[in-house]
Amino acid sequence: MKVIPADRAVPLQDVKLEDAFWSGYGRLIREVVLPYQYETLHDRVPGVELSYAIRNFRIAAGREEGEFGGMVFQDSDVAKWLEAVAYSLHTHPDAALEAQADEMIDLVAEAQQPDGYLNTYYTIKEPGKRWTNLTECHELYCAGHMLEAAVAYYRATGKSKLLQVMKRFADHIDTVFGPEEGKLKGYDGHQEIELALVKLYQVTQEEKYLRLARYFIDERGREPSFFHREWEQRGGVSHWSGKKESKPPHLPYFQAHKPVREQEVAVGHSVRAVYMYTAMADLAAYTRDETLLAACRRLWSNMVHKQMYITGGIGSTHHGEAFTFDYDLPNDTVYAETCASIGLIFFAKRMLLLEAKSEYADVMERALYNTVIAGMAQDGRHFFYVNPLEVWAPACRHNPGKHHVKPVRPGWFSCACCPPNVARLIASLGEYIYTAGRDTLYTHLYIGGEAKVELGGAMVTVRQDSRLPWEGTVRLQVEPDRSAAFTLALRVPGWCPEAKLRVNGQALDLSGCIRDGYACVTRTWEPGDRVELELAMPVLRVRSHPQVRANAGKVALQRGPLVYAFESADNPSPLSSLVLDRQAPLQAEYDAGLLGGAVVLTGPAVLEDEAAWGDALYRPAGREGRQVQVKAVPYYLWGNRGEGEMTVWIRE
Amino acid sequence: MKVIPADRAVPLQDVKLEDAFWSGYGRLIREVVLPYQYETLHDRVPGVELSYAIRNFRIAAGREEGEFGGMVFQDSDVAKWLEAVAYSLHTHPDAALEAQADEMIDLVAEAQQPDGYLNTYYTIKEPGKRWTNLTECHELYCAGHMLEAAVAYYRATGKSKLLQVMKRFADHIDTVFGPEEGKLKGYDGHQEIELALVKLYQVTQEEKYLRLARYFIDERGREPSFFHREWEQRGGVSHWSGKKESKPPHLPYFQAHKPVREQEVAVGHSVRAVYMYTAMADLAAYTRDETLLAACRRLWSNMVHKQMYITGGIGSTHHGEAFTFDYDLPNDTVYAETCASIGLIFFAKRMLLLEAKSEYADVMERALYNTVIAGMAQDGRHFFYVNPLEVWAPACRHNPGKHHVKPVRPGWFSCACCPPNVARLIASLGEYIYTAGRDTLYTHLYIGGEAKVELGGAMVTVRQDSRLPWEGTVRLQVEPDRSAAFTLALRVPGWCPEAKLRVNGQALDLSGCIRDGYACVTRTWEPGDRVELELAMPVLRVRSHPQVRANAGKVALQRGPLVYAFESADNPSPLSSLVLDRQAPLQAEYDAGLLGGAVVLTGPAVLEDEAAWGDALYRPAGREGRQVQVKAVPYYLWGNRGEGEMTVWIRE
Repeated sequence: MKVIPADRAVPLQDVKLEDAFWSGYGRLIREVVLPYQYETLHDRVPGVELSYAIRNFRIAAGREEGEFGGMVFQDSDVAKWLEAVAYSLHTHPDAALEAQADEMIDLVAEAQQPDGYLNTYYTIKEPGKRWTNLTECHELYCAGHMLEAAVAYYRATGKSKLLQVMKRFADHIDTVFGPEEGKLKGYDGHQEIELALVKLYQVTQEEKYLRLARYFIDERGREPSFFHREWEQRGGVSHWSGKKESKPPHLPYFQAHKPVREQEVAVGHSVRAVYMYTAMADLAAYTRDETLLAACRRLWSNMVHKQMYITGGIGSTHHGEAFTFDYDLPNDTVYAETCASIGLIFFAKRMLLLEAKSEYADVMERALYNTVIAGMAQDGRHFFYVNPLEVWAPACRHNPGKHHVKPVRPGWFSCACCPPNVARLIASLGEYIYTAGRDTLYTHLYIGGEAKVELGGAMVTVRQDSRLPWEGTVRLQVEPDRSAAFTLALRVPGWCPEAKLRVNGQALDLSGCIRDGYACVTRTWEPGDRVELELAMPVLRVRSHPQVRANAGKVALQRGPLVYAFESADNPSPLSSLVLDRQAPLQAEYDAGLLGGAVVLTGPAVLEDEAAWGDALYRPAGREGRQVQVKAVPYYLWGNRGEGEMTVWIRE
Repeated sequence: MKVIPADRAVPLQDVKLEDAFWSGYGRLIREVVLPYQYETLHDRVPGVELSYAIRNFRIAAGREEGEFGGMVFQDSDVAKWLEAVAYSLHTHPDAALEAQADEMIDLVAEAQQPDGYLNTYYTIKEPGKRWTNLTECHELYCAGHMLEAAVAYYRATGKSKLLQVMKRFADHIDTVFGPEEGKLKGYDGHQEIELALVKLYQVTQEEKYLRLARYFIDERGREPSFFHREWEQRGGVSHWSGKKESKPPHLPYFQAHKPVREQEVAVGHSVRAVYMYTAMADLAAYTRDETLLAACRRLWSNMVHKQMYITGGIGSTHHGEAFTFDYDLPNDTVYAETCASIGLIFFAKRMLLLEAKSEYADVMERALYNTVIAGMAQDGRHFFYVNPLEVWAPACRHNPGKHHVKPVRPGWFSCACCPPNVARLIASLGEYIYTAGRDTLYTHLYIGGEAKVELGGAMVTVRQDSRLPWEGTVRLQVEPDRSAAFTLALRVPGWCPEAKLRVNGQALDLSGCIRDGYACVTRTWEPGDRVELELAMPVLRVRSHPQVRANAGKVALQRGPLVYAFESADNPSPLSSLVLDRQAPLQAEYDAGLLGGAVVLTGPAVLEDEAAWGDALYRPAGREGRQVQVKAVPYYLWGNRGEGEMTVWIRE
């Protein structure tokens, strides 16, 4: 395997956030989410489902007696908390938090078995059954998350204890799986280890980890199916039902129905899919494997052009938390799991390292500003797992096909994958803003702060000031430690109809310098150079492709990166009776009183009146309507003001 | 219990059908459906799921060795076939068919146990477990269907063998259930026995059967719940899963959550609900029980004004084949089981006997001309169980939330309740046309043929000639055997904006003679008197109540009793891209070539073009459209021309 250096991520330690919009989220993660999740992991939050996660580790470490509790993949919640803490410590050192993490790492290390194995479920509950049900039991998935935590914690603190633990475990895994005679020719039901091993390679530079990641990717979907063989070997008994299942595992659910390089469309469990695509893109970057890159492009394109909600949500059905098929994007029975959009951001970032095309960043931004932050309430203590685009509260209770949709954010989940995933993404947000080519700095997201990066032989500090998502004004101050020639590539977002660029006050003609969606300024930069980008941010009435039957005759409002939602808290109900005036202008106005302040949109609409209907359910009659003003709030803020109705798509 | 004579049904033996539209259906039932179902029951149709129904009886009768096959309620398929045969023999004597039925009755009789008990499942598979799982195992349900068959066969042929068998079984049931000390205080999970016992009372005039029916109705929903007690007694083990269930039965599913007189809204499994309401109305008629009547009116009103599809379908979700809640009428994830609409017709007929209000007949007609006949293909060999109002064929395969919806009619079902139910309804259609008050003949349906009924002291023959559903011309010829004073009450359908009535060629002013939706003509009738009713039948654009979110901004086309559907076989796809012109007139035209001939509707619409979209999924852009002609066919004919798209509701 020939490993080739790829475009560079600008690592978290080199990016400091200072942003009117995002710094508040960082603070929320540090001050509320991490402490709250810490307490939850320790089963100390009253009224919330028990986690058992720390308790499982204590039992596995021999500190306590008891039974395993929670999901088979409960360990991963501890891992995700540690990883989020690591990211937070990068930018906000906190001795007390670090001490909590160190203590937790000691516990994790104690739970490691003599041969390097680490998994509390198989240590406590089914010793001797290791690696017998990779299809369902998330063994390598949990390993992957702890690996990610180990890498992040090492990078953040320089402390290598968890990294050594996980390196030992990875080495153990390497003795179990692989193409060599006598090893298991398998892979995990839930992809995650693959991208984690790439990170382990990044900090250790040991190619064997990259090779193992590639092995898992290459092996997946080969015939005869590993999952089918495994199913036969365990007598068809399912971990989940405890019963013998009449059918072998459904391979598309696991993206294991054909070799990954032959996959054409996004199928199956959406989080598994994007975690896998992320690792595929990682491997394509390091190995310049064109077939893998082609598969990544194809799967990206299918997902983003045929199966993605306007909010950046993916996964059209709760059955298997999965993709369905092209253009099938129901708004009310949707899944759009928060974790899936986070995985989509991971994938987008890897694609940006492969090829800096603005579509990847557009999607990253769309998922981030809409589904991901919608996933968490403004109090940092309530979370959405499912992110619907249309909600009618009584339907969530009385129509069983919508039971998975919640009209307000619950406190925690028995399957608590999403909350810690939001925490680790937001805590590491600095990683997503820039990437660097040889002599180019790409700015993908307009989030204020300071980044340090080597360009054109100089060490360059870039100070970004952004008023997004409320206004389209972005300023960059470039401070190379000496004059240096390089390119500053600034993304012109897909939502922006007109961008203006000034360098040191001088307007630049953008028409000639747009490359793959980035405005590229190549010059010899001097300390103190200033770049100003003015992104027009009109209210857009967005329509969807006619094949998306669910949105026919409807528009969604978008302004900048934010998709808007109509709620019954602000509008007459049913929201389906509102018809937006096609011609009338929509006003954007900052409302400081709304949930921490936000730009809201208002405009005229017609409300079809139901007063005349009486008891009739059907009647041949005209529509009586009256003029009303409607109001839309950013989608990420929906569901914070009690139960009601919500819709992203509105009739026009 | 005081039993009071109710308004009279005009029984099947007194009604002969001769109708351009319906006679063909009758023929289809006789010539195709009954023979086909006979073969199916005998497991002799290749390529169709095995029924096992006759085989089960042969095993129970000791004629054959073997295991029970099919559903626990498989016996009811034999019963429904026998019942349909009985109705058919009424109007079309057929010695060969009667011989088949007699032979089957001999078999059923042989399967009866010495104490009168009759049920092949408990005889073959779980002897000794009788009456231990009424919640799930349909013991009384099967008894009810065989009772209905027995009554019908006795009425049709005068042969009492099956009636005697079933009377013995009913007597046995009467020794098992009841308020007396030592009897089981229970009732069936699936209502049916109640309405069947009323029929047994009607032919035997033995009040104990009416009392037993009332016992089941009165007992239902009392606390502590019989179903919960039974669940505890069987250790929580479910017939269906074979496992111990963690929760007791969900009572609203069975309409057993509260006493029936206290029920306000239609809930739970929709077929069970309407079968129960039918029996409640029967009992209200015979006992003039005002609280029962009030409950019937309330449940009717909730169902028809809040939870019924425009096609007369009921049951908004496949989860439990159930009602959901007011105004929740999704078109694509709908259930709308054929059997439920048949049950709705049963209920409507009973309500008409209680109070002749045209709304009952309107709903009866709506369900009959739309959902019920849509349930069967024009070949009589393929059937819908689920009757959607919106279908996108690939979604039925690739979106698991729509797996229950089929884009074309399958041949038979492992749970084959609907096909024989369609057969028995159509074979007994003559029963639904008229009811008689003391001196009034109500005509509820405009279906040609001849009826005999006693009115005003005379025996009156009424000959009806109708061009429905294609034209609104109805002629009645009245032939009393001597001059007689009575009222002819002719329903003015809800879909008719203008009706004209002529008696012996003389126009009548209708304004003064409409009573509860019926045009009432009171006079002394002479032999040869002619009544002509001209019902205007314009194409109606029907809208639904604004609370029905699924239909916002859309219309459905209706002409006469027929609701129309747009199919991709006739129109460009996706159908959601079609926008009907609000002003332009719609043409109704008879198309003799369409599936046996039907009036189709055509008109101008705009098709939103997708050519300009390319790869984009979302974009802020105008809608490009072009003028097209669209065509709608009667809903009952949809899905007969291959897989595609269909919608009842179209944008306007």
